[in-house]
Amino acid sequence: MGLILLRYGELGLKGGNRKEFVRRLRKNVRACLKAHNLQGVVASIGQRVYVQTDQVQEALEPLSRVFGLVSLSPVAQVARDIEAVVAECVHQAREAGIGPETSYRVRARRADKTFPFTSPEINRLAGEAIREATGARVDLSDQADVTIGVEVARDAALIYGRVLPAPGGLPVGVEGRVVALISGGIDSPVAAWMMLKRGCGVVPVHFSQSEGDTQKALDNTAVLSHYSYGWTFHPRILDQREVVGPTLERLREIGEERWNCVFCKRLLLLKACEIAEEVGAHALVMGDSLGQVASQSLANLEIISYGIPKPILRPLIGLDKAEIVAIARRIGTFDISTRSEGSCIFLPAHPLTRGSLEALRGVIGRLEGRIPG
Amino acid sequence: MGLILLRYGELGLKGGNRKEFVRRLRKNVRACLKAHNLQGVVASIGQRVYVQTDQVQEALEPLSRVFGLVSLSPVAQVARDIEAVVAECVHQAREAGIGPETSYRVRARRADKTFPFTSPEINRLAGEAIREATGARVDLSDQADVTIGVEVARDAALIYGRVLPAPGGLPVGVEGRVVALISGGIDSPVAAWMMLKRGCGVVPVHFSQSEGDTQKALDNTAVLSHYSYGWTFHPRILDQREVVGPTLERLREIGEERWNCVFCKRLLLLKACEIAEEVGAHALVMGDSLGQVASQSLANLEIISYGIPKPILRPLIGLDKAEIVAIARRIGTFDISTRSEGSCIFLPAHPLTRGSLEALRGVIGRLEGRIPG
Repeated sequence: MGLILLRYGELGLKGGNRKEFVRRLRKNVRACLKAHNLQGVVASIGQRVYVQTDQVQEALEPLSRVFGLVSLSPVAQVARDIEAVVAECVHQAREAGIGPETSYRVRARRADKTFPFTSPEINRLAGEAIREATGARVDLSDQADVTIGVEVARDAALIYGRVLPAPGGLPVGVEGRVVALISGGIDSPVAAWMMLKRGCGVVPVHFSQSEGDTQKALDNTAVLSHYSYGWTFHPRILDQREVVGPTLERLREIGEERWNCVFCKRLLLLKACEIAEEVGAHALVMGDSLGQVASQSLANLEIISYGIPKPILRPLIGLDKAEIVAIARRIGTFDISTRSEGSCIFLPAHPLTRGSLEALRGVIGRLEGRIPG
Repeated sequence: MGLILLRYGELGLKGGNRKEFVRRLRKNVRACLKAHNLQGVVASIGQRVYVQTDQVQEALEPLSRVFGLVSLSPVAQVARDIEAVVAECVHQAREAGIGPETSYRVRARRADKTFPFTSPEINRLAGEAIREATGARVDLSDQADVTIGVEVARDAALIYGRVLPAPGGLPVGVEGRVVALISGGIDSPVAAWMMLKRGCGVVPVHFSQSEGDTQKALDNTAVLSHYSYGWTFHPRILDQREVVGPTLERLREIGEERWNCVFCKRLLLLKACEIAEEVGAHALVMGDSLGQVASQSLANLEIISYGIPKPILRPLIGLDKAEIVAIARRIGTFDISTRSEGSCIFLPAHPLTRGSLEALRGVIGRLEGRIPG
């Protein structure tokens, strides 16, 4: 039976949160294995979480997308015999790619103190064997290129060297639910991904304008599902024209089409709040970024948000477009988002660039017929 | 007179925004030079912005902190003579540190077409000279380790090789104002920095609990001022006890101290909204992160935000603590933020971990005496 060591992190996580974190992490790891038809058992041994599986190689890539994990290592199990331990340490050091240019250290721990060699003795014996075999340089500090871990348990010795990165964050689902507005564009799937990363159960909502655009949103949601093991998406698709059509028609009648984008976004957010109430979500998520187009101003952000009853989370608000694109490429949504589709069908010729609350209230009044248009 | 080439980016920036972007960038670059007592002239030549100064070396480091710039290069000016151009290209290649292990390319442009060598000819002659001098490998693609730029103008040839990174983003001030709540902690200065990066004029507000904590906030604001040339901070310091004291006293009277953190944050946000109205800011900025402590839940975020009239920007909401700490270290606020101070003096023994709007309304009613306590 093969073994994979899962490392979790989240510097600063405190108190009762840690227990819930690990419980949910194990659940999501099990869901990840199941989603890929892999047989395996998830077990906690002390402070560590392991996957026992005969399909170690197949499991590594999917597991490297489970939020809450910071890294993973395939683990070799050998007999509790010092020669077997030393030989496996050399093998693992080679697997981790060390050579004369790299530095390494061996860190042994004995869960079972009856093993006849102490941890420092194991470190020294294995360390010397690695140096002789590879010519690498010992570095006992945190700065070593490769750390060979040895854990002597009751039944076997566990040895690992290779470390694969995982995405960090919190286990999906540990933080409650959010409603994420997903368009066909680059930004919104990245925003949803970042909230998945922070442990939120994401409910995707898409306002449909065209079949192609909706397909992009659904395809991106499918990509995101590779980062949300343990949480199943139930995307809501709504007809955007039904939600915004009547109001935009009235704006046209009173000659205020430049307000289209502001009212459109407010209506979509209000509809998303209704869905949030239905599904028990605490917040909305948008891919807003500042200044990409003239109407994406702080002033417009203020009036779009005004009076929306749920908090709006904008995880991309402090990022550059180049940074957002880099994440989209890395997670696999970029190529879908950039498939050519027409731009928004409700976009006016000259969208408002800097609205004010006073002007918003004025237009709302005229829409409602309280003030003569 | 020395010359520095400033490169700006912001992929996706459109229309009228670009002009305002460059105008503000030039203003902020001038402010940067002035803040460091450097003499220099900021000039646009075609699509490029240059600084002319006799203090090139001194100017590079401060300029590398101007938001809106993606990189800078010190530029050598030589006579319009092919031998001088080629010799300087070799010199710049060496300055950029190329050797047999690196790849390079030469990219010449002639602003003045009367120069007797074409751009491809300059590329070839300079490229060969660099290869002979350094043994480096030519790579005409974007992937080259070093690009030597040559611009033949009317009076001189401009040549550059070294490229220093700059922080990207938008020029501070181009996006209007925000009020940023700055505590003595790690997160809030990073959040403020990210909104500076996205072009916001930040108005820092600190709610004071202790002298030491306030000094940390002020010291961090001073660090942030090295990223806000062209925008002067006018920090507002308010006594936190004055803002929250009476309400927290009432919570104690009715035995609901576990609500302290929720009410405290709501009161600080409402006060920050008043300041935002005064200074014409469109939004508030907080360093919120999810799940670091049990009371930092999505449910609490919802009720803390409820009814706050300004949008609350939370640029760190999608980041891990490790990512936030890495930014804090890079920008220079980490060591200040981690100076030891007592924790919040209003922190109850058992803060509420997951409040609801209904419960919030209930407590507000009892505070106001409408419902018997």
